[in-house]
Amino acid sequence: MTVDGQRLGIVIMNSLQPNECSQEQALYSEGLNQRLIAEWEATRRQTEALCEPLSIEDMSLQADSPPKWHLAHTSWFFETFILSELVPSYQAFHPRFEYLFNSYYNAVGEQFDRSKRGLLSRPSLDEVIAYRRYVDQQMMRLLSGDDRLSDDDTCILLTRCMLGVQHEKQHQELLLMDIRYSLFQNPLLPEYQAGYLLKPHKKEQQTQSRETLWVSHEGGLVEIGADHNVGDEHFCFDNELPRHSTYLEPFQIAKNLVTNRDYLKFIEAGGYSRPECWLADGWSTVNNQNWTSPLYWLKQESQWFEFTLAGLQPLDLDAPVTNISGYEAAAFAEWAGARLPTEAEWEFAVSQAESHSSESLNQVYTFGWQWTASAYQAYPGYRPEQGAIGEYNGKFMSNQWVLRGGASISPANHLRVTYRNFFYPQDRWVTTSIRLAR
Amino acid sequence: MTVDGQRLGIVIMNSLQPNECSQEQALYSEGLNQRLIAEWEATRRQTEALCEPLSIEDMSLQADSPPKWHLAHTSWFFETFILSELVPSYQAFHPRFEYLFNSYYNAVGEQFDRSKRGLLSRPSLDEVIAYRRYVDQQMMRLLSGDDRLSDDDTCILLTRCMLGVQHEKQHQELLLMDIRYSLFQNPLLPEYQAGYLLKPHKKEQQTQSRETLWVSHEGGLVEIGADHNVGDEHFCFDNELPRHSTYLEPFQIAKNLVTNRDYLKFIEAGGYSRPECWLADGWSTVNNQNWTSPLYWLKQESQWFEFTLAGLQPLDLDAPVTNISGYEAAAFAEWAGARLPTEAEWEFAVSQAESHSSESLNQVYTFGWQWTASAYQAYPGYRPEQGAIGEYNGKFMSNQWVLRGGASISPANHLRVTYRNFFYPQDRWVTTSIRLAR
Amino acid sequence: MTVDGQRLGIVIMNSLQPNECSQEQALYSEGLNQRLIAEWEATRRQTEALCEPLSIEDMSLQADSPPKWHLAHTSWFFETFILSELVPSYQAFHPRFEYLFNSYYNAVGEQFDRSKRGLLSRPSLDEVIAYRRYVDQQMMRLLSGDDRLSDDDTCILLTRCMLGVQHEKQHQELLLMDIRYSLFQNPLLPEYQAGYLLKPHKKEQQTQSRETLWVSHEGGLVEIGADHNVGDEHFCFDNELPRHSTYLEPFQIAKNLVTNRDYLKFIEAGGYSRPECWLADGWSTVNNQNWTSPLYWLKQESQWFEFTLAGLQPLDLDAPVTNISGYEAAAFAEWAGARLPTEAEWEFAVSQAESHSSESLNQVYTFGWQWTASAYQAYPGYRPEQGAIGEYNGKFMSNQWVLRGGASISPANHLRVTYRNFFYPQDRWVTTSIRLAR
Amino acid sequence: MTVDGQRLGIVIMNSLQPNECSQEQALYSEGLNQRLIAEWEATRRQTEALCEPLSIEDMSLQADSPPKWHLAHTSWFFETFILSELVPSYQAFHPRFEYLFNSYYNAVGEQFDRSKRGLLSRPSLDEVIAYRRYVDQQMMRLLSGDDRLSDDDTCILLTRCMLGVQHEKQHQELLLMDIRYSLFQNPLLPEYQAGYLLKPHKKEQQTQSRETLWVSHEGGLVEIGADHNVGDEHFCFDNELPRHSTYLEPFQIAKNLVTNRDYLKFIEAGGYSRPECWLADGWSTVNNQNWTSPLYWLKQESQWFEFTLAGLQPLDLDAPVTNISGYEAAAFAEWAGARLPTEAEWEFAVSQAESHSSESLNQVYTFGWQWTASAYQAYPGYRPEQGAIGEYNGKFMSNQWVLRGGASISPANHLRVTYRNFFYPQDRWVTTSIRLAR
Repeated sequence: MTVDGQRLGIVIMNSLQPNECSQEQALYSEGLNQRLIAEWEATRRQTEALCEPLSIEDMSLQADSPPKWHLAHTSWFFETFILSELVPSYQAFHPRFEYLFNSYYNAVGEQFDRSKRGLLSRPSLDEVIAYRRYVDQQMMRLLSGDDRLSDDDTCILLTRCMLGVQHEKQHQELLLMDIRYSLFQNPLLPEYQAGYLLKPHKKEQQTQSRETLWVSHEGGLVEIGADHNVGDEHFCFDNELPRHSTYLEPFQIAKNLVTNRDYLKFIEAGGYSRPECWLADGWSTVNNQNWTSPLYWLKQESQWFEFTLAGLQPLDLDAPVTNISGYEAAAFAEWAGARLPTEAEWEFAVSQAESHSSESLNQVYTFGWQWTASAYQAYPGYRPEQGAIGEYNGKFMSNQWVLRGGASISPANHLRVTYRNFFYPQDRWVTTSIRLAR
Repeated sequence: MTVDGQRLGIVIMNSLQPNECSQEQALYSEGLNQRLIAEWEATRRQTEALCEPLSIEDMSLQADSPPKWHLAHTSWFFETFILSELVPSYQAFHPRFEYLFNSYYNAVGEQFDRSKRGLLSRPSLDEVIAYRRYVDQQMMRLLSGDDRLSDDDTCILLTRCMLGVQHEKQHQELLLMDIRYSLFQNPLLPEYQAGYLLKPHKKEQQTQSRETLWVSHEGGLVEIGADHNVGDEHFCFDNELPRHSTYLEPFQIAKNLVTNRDYLKFIEAGGYSRPECWLADGWSTVNNQNWTSPLYWLKQESQWFEFTLAGLQPLDLDAPVTNISGYEAAAFAEWAGARLPTEAEWEFAVSQAESHSSESLNQVYTFGWQWTASAYQAYPGYRPEQGAIGEYNGKFMSNQWVLRGGASISPANHLRVTYRNFFYPQDRWVTTSIRLAR
Repeated sequence: MTVDGQRLGIVIMNSLQPNECSQEQALYSEGLNQRLIAEWEATRRQTEALCEPLSIEDMSLQADSPPKWHLAHTSWFFETFILSELVPSYQAFHPRFEYLFNSYYNAVGEQFDRSKRGLLSRPSLDEVIAYRRYVDQQMMRLLSGDDRLSDDDTCILLTRCMLGVQHEKQHQELLLMDIRYSLFQNPLLPEYQAGYLLKPHKKEQQTQSRETLWVSHEGGLVEIGADHNVGDEHFCFDNELPRHSTYLEPFQIAKNLVTNRDYLKFIEAGGYSRPECWLADGWSTVNNQNWTSPLYWLKQESQWFEFTLAGLQPLDLDAPVTNISGYEAAAFAEWAGARLPTEAEWEFAVSQAESHSSESLNQVYTFGWQWTASAYQAYPGYRPEQGAIGEYNGKFMSNQWVLRGGASISPANHLRVTYRNFFYPQDRWVTTSIRLAR
Repeated sequence: MTVDGQRLGIVIMNSLQPNECSQEQALYSEGLNQRLIAEWEATRRQTEALCEPLSIEDMSLQADSPPKWHLAHTSWFFETFILSELVPSYQAFHPRFEYLFNSYYNAVGEQFDRSKRGLLSRPSLDEVIAYRRYVDQQMMRLLSGDDRLSDDDTCILLTRCMLGVQHEKQHQELLLMDIRYSLFQNPLLPEYQAGYLLKPHKKEQQTQSRETLWVSHEGGLVEIGADHNVGDEHFCFDNELPRHSTYLEPFQIAKNLVTNRDYLKFIEAGGYSRPECWLADGWSTVNNQNWTSPLYWLKQESQWFEFTLAGLQPLDLDAPVTNISGYEAAAFAEWAGARLPTEAEWEFAVSQAESHSSESLNQVYTFGWQWTASAYQAYPGYRPEQGAIGEYNGKFMSNQWVLRGGASISPANHLRVTYRNFFYPQDRWVTTSIRLAR
């Protein structure tokens, strides 16, 4: 898969240590800088653009994290991991923001209680915007080369900046997930924006059959993971490394995602009250939380609706089911006589399709992250980076499941076949979907 | 006690049934109307004035209830209990507000989850203000007599309007309590308003000795409670009725409130780690919640500070201790070899002082509500009103304690000697204080 | 009221300080000793007799506290408050029992976690019985006068021993409450003993009408509470002191207790789904705990049964309803257009009946403790004893309600008109009942 | 690996479907029967023998599940999955035991609340023993061939019986884990049996060095899992199937387990207060549960002790550390600059050693189950059995980690190189240990 604009013509792996930035790479850096700066600027603008439909009061809503907090935290990231490290004279915008907007980096210091983020009326939205401006100004100065940096520091700047850009893109998606979930708590069911994302991929959707179409693979010893030894490669997170061999048995993977129509059959067949479909922990969750349908489904006078960023909408039976937990995905698969693909199967199948070596799959990056059967664990040989930045991915490798692909709300220039997303199997506010295997 | 402007020249008891509004009272109503309208208008304005120091983001803060919610709920009260009942053609401002802004009236219907009030970014503050304007306009029309009401309905209008005014004053105090508590959750410790309420009663404060001064009473058969059979009487809540006899043993009551200096001695004497001072439920609470000092006290570099509506301030040792729970008040009293007064003792002692029959007490209405040793229960002969309005007070008569007097943040024209405030003994965000007895 | 055998011919108030044991009383002590020893021996035997129907496995059952724990704790009481204090050479039976079997006396020291009492398989039942024998032997030696005690110590011995006897009687009742509740957790619904307490008071029961019969009282200034200044008086707990005046409005009190038939009507009228009947805290409890009928009621194939110490029995509609919480009692009373009596009303009415000054009340001590409308608080002038023993009653004076009378499972020689029992209004495993007032 | 007596000379896979029991296998069945019956009898006896050191009161102790419950549940297993299915005239011992002693088989029906197992004083221990005798008698009759069974039923009998034997062995280990944990709740720290398992493997222990010794493997494409196509094979659980290929990078695995001495260094280096060592979920657990050392370690007067089945013992610094959670194991490995092995690495390394193709590993089956880095998931091609028995393993494949090897308390004839044990990473009462890899 090629997502336009994603390739930067040089290895910008966040896992590179300073001394791994070779001289050749440094030579590239001028050209790179221009592309990186452009991407950085566009990303910073886009985060704010996503907030435009929101009122100032929406900006503090916390069912999970408030949009205002996302605005601040993504700036904190550049301040903490670039400005504070590379600019000796750097003055923090506010002495307490290090604490307030640290998400989970223990090596940076204590963090403000996550559950109270919605209680931070101060700093005001205006102050947070000023914080963004301040950080942007300092970053621009650094990126434009006004300050003379050593080669090592230049390397840190480039790799951290690219990581910060991708980090901010992740928060763009989280922001939309969070605001949808927050607005859903309001009985008025307010919309984020009229018409937002409604039928965005109608064409792709219409191509699908109501029968599950299977794409077959013979398996064998295959390679997965990102590869930073290849010269012209795009960014990846450290958890995608290293590229490594894995052995696959023959398998089939569904060409299309499971639709709302399919999932409704599962509900109507009593899926939520049949323990034999569910993992034991899933069945406990179903009963403790009284799940009877996907999170955003509402039944009104015998008709099903779905709460979306465009408000309450009639359920589109031909669209892929989204926002289901991993437990629900696994239970549906069991009920359907199938299973979820492993992440290696998924990556191999999608890679083959992208290189035209096999029949293509539909809806890979366009509807919802696809739950896999794989627990989120380290690839063989994985080592997180040294220092606080090493907490980015590695410490979450327990109790979560890998998801692959992307979602309708994923930002541009962000997705790739090796991308490993991860959430807890009980999470429902994520834009997920189901692709079956067998 | 005479609180200026509080007397309205007629009995406006909220417990009056329509047919209890006698003809004579009706005759008064024109003059009354003018005074009531003035009081009503001033109260409505004052609630909004209290919000002036707050940003739009502060208005949604929910450690307990958001200011915006208070603005809406106090309008809901007039809409639900007056406009909807007396104006046949009344159109609700919004069909879902009955549900969203109902606090606890089961007879009106289901209520939106109290813990999610902070998640209501919609209606926006602007819409809530518009709601207030709409209700005010309709109320003014009714109060101005443009609509012809029956005598019974006039009586309902007058009694309910007065109740609504007093209800709104209660919420003015709650709003200040809530915002202080909400701002306290923010590590930046922002202030509500610079200088707010600092040293408001310096003069009264300075008169007090460091020794406990006792005022003695002989007790005997006395009367307490409000009396609606007396012609020229002010408003009261139904829980102050009826006036009744009670027998008091001889007792002494402290002339002054317990100071921060006194309370600090209790802390320094290990009060929070001496179970013998505490009620059993209090001792559990101390340990489960790790109490070691009053809620708003913070120790920084061996100096004590107090978080106030004017931000963090050095602890004023001569000022009365405030914002302590009932358990803390009782433990302090036990440690000091005294006890809390019963509500009957308190009311009798203050009444005597107000009628100049005994030595006066200081700081009765000006610092903090004074915890009594009395559980909140019905007076003999108490009957709540019929219908939803009967839920105002009566259903809370379990597990709470009576507090008497008033607080620095209590609104004008709101306090009186018979007033029975009530909170749970573990509540700390209330502006409370301690007056000893023995 | 005279409960046979309860009068001891001398003041044995647990609140007496040593120096209050006058010379005259000391003279009585020999005759007293004989009666006290007899009562003490009978009580110790009776506790063990209550365990006879239980298997060794039942003895460790902990829904609340295990029977084995009651056996040990009642011995601990004599050991801690008499033997350890009065016998200089006393050797504790086991050095850790002070910790293991301390219920809640902070002044004695830390207590083993109440919720883990069922996890104490050691000491074994045999060891606990040996502990009882050891304590009994030491106590008997002390009571028989073999050791020479000072007058003060003799006074302590007598008052503490009587307190220990009454304490053990309280635990006899708790033991039966606890074992019923524990057996109820078992789906096999095992019985404590076939036929136990079935129809014990059939005769009294049959006298009652299906209409509520009211006994009227004029009220006025009356005295309640125990009086230790009268020579020939029985034991009381410190919370019954001092006798004091209180003023009563005219009231009526029901001659009989509310029956299962009455209560069933409340259920059938939708009582458990009508918020207007309930206190706010009660209504929360109903909903959080899904109450739809009394704790021990079970409906099988449209017939109601009650789980009793004799196993599951058809509900006796003519018998008083028992084992209802205070919230249920108050809700029933509200629904029935009545209220619960205050403890002063109850005591006055029963006292008058016992002295033949008024019509008698039925079922005062024979079915279930009667919830009152009174929160459990100190009488005016109440002072708990000094030291650990002062924790017996006083520290529980918050959040609980007073109950009066007695229960079918109350031991002999234990009840009296001034007795103040107390439980939380949500407690349901207590043998309670409802007597209405208005 | 050959564990003596474990091989039965025929394929007894629990995953065999009736029609997979070939004729040839049936021919073997007579000889098999004798060996199976012997193993079955020995196992049933052994479970009861494990209870001999326990008092009747110990038998009901529930910190997790009571020994008495294990005695009943292991009988329930034979009753439910063999007797009820194969003997048309079978009369259940007690109609409610199906419900009371069902652990987690939803397809069998509802289950009694796990947390209340300790509240079942009835059935008594005597009744549970009688239940065992009854089931044993019926089983013996079936196994002895008195009833004529069809070939299919014979196959079910043999496979289910072998499964029941292994199931009971698992419960023997659980019983010892549970009783240790239950006794640990008692402040008297009673022992299960004096000297039990103390220094059981002293010789093996002494061989180890204080330096980590590493065994190197080149990896490559290897096979793991059990193989039921090989004729002379022992029992396995369905989750060990099928045997399949997997690719391993070169790795090293520790020859010995981590010792208490090693682990103490981690503690002394501040391991429990250094977030950088811990997985995020592990760090939360450390803080929420205040972990500062392994579950059974106690420090008294600056010396470390360990609570064992033989009571409190001085910590043996040369013995492997046991009873640590997966989070603790992973944190130790991180701190030590190593990692946990994957289950494939572990199985491959142990297989090689058992076939003498590589240097042997120590302490594989003799101290504690070794945490792996692998989440517990299905092998490729895994299918659970049909029906209730399919709930045995498959439904637990989320949130748990695989452990390999065996423990000092594991029963004889139970362990093998392909065995996949699984527990939650927060579990500490399991007899676990740490083998490092890198």
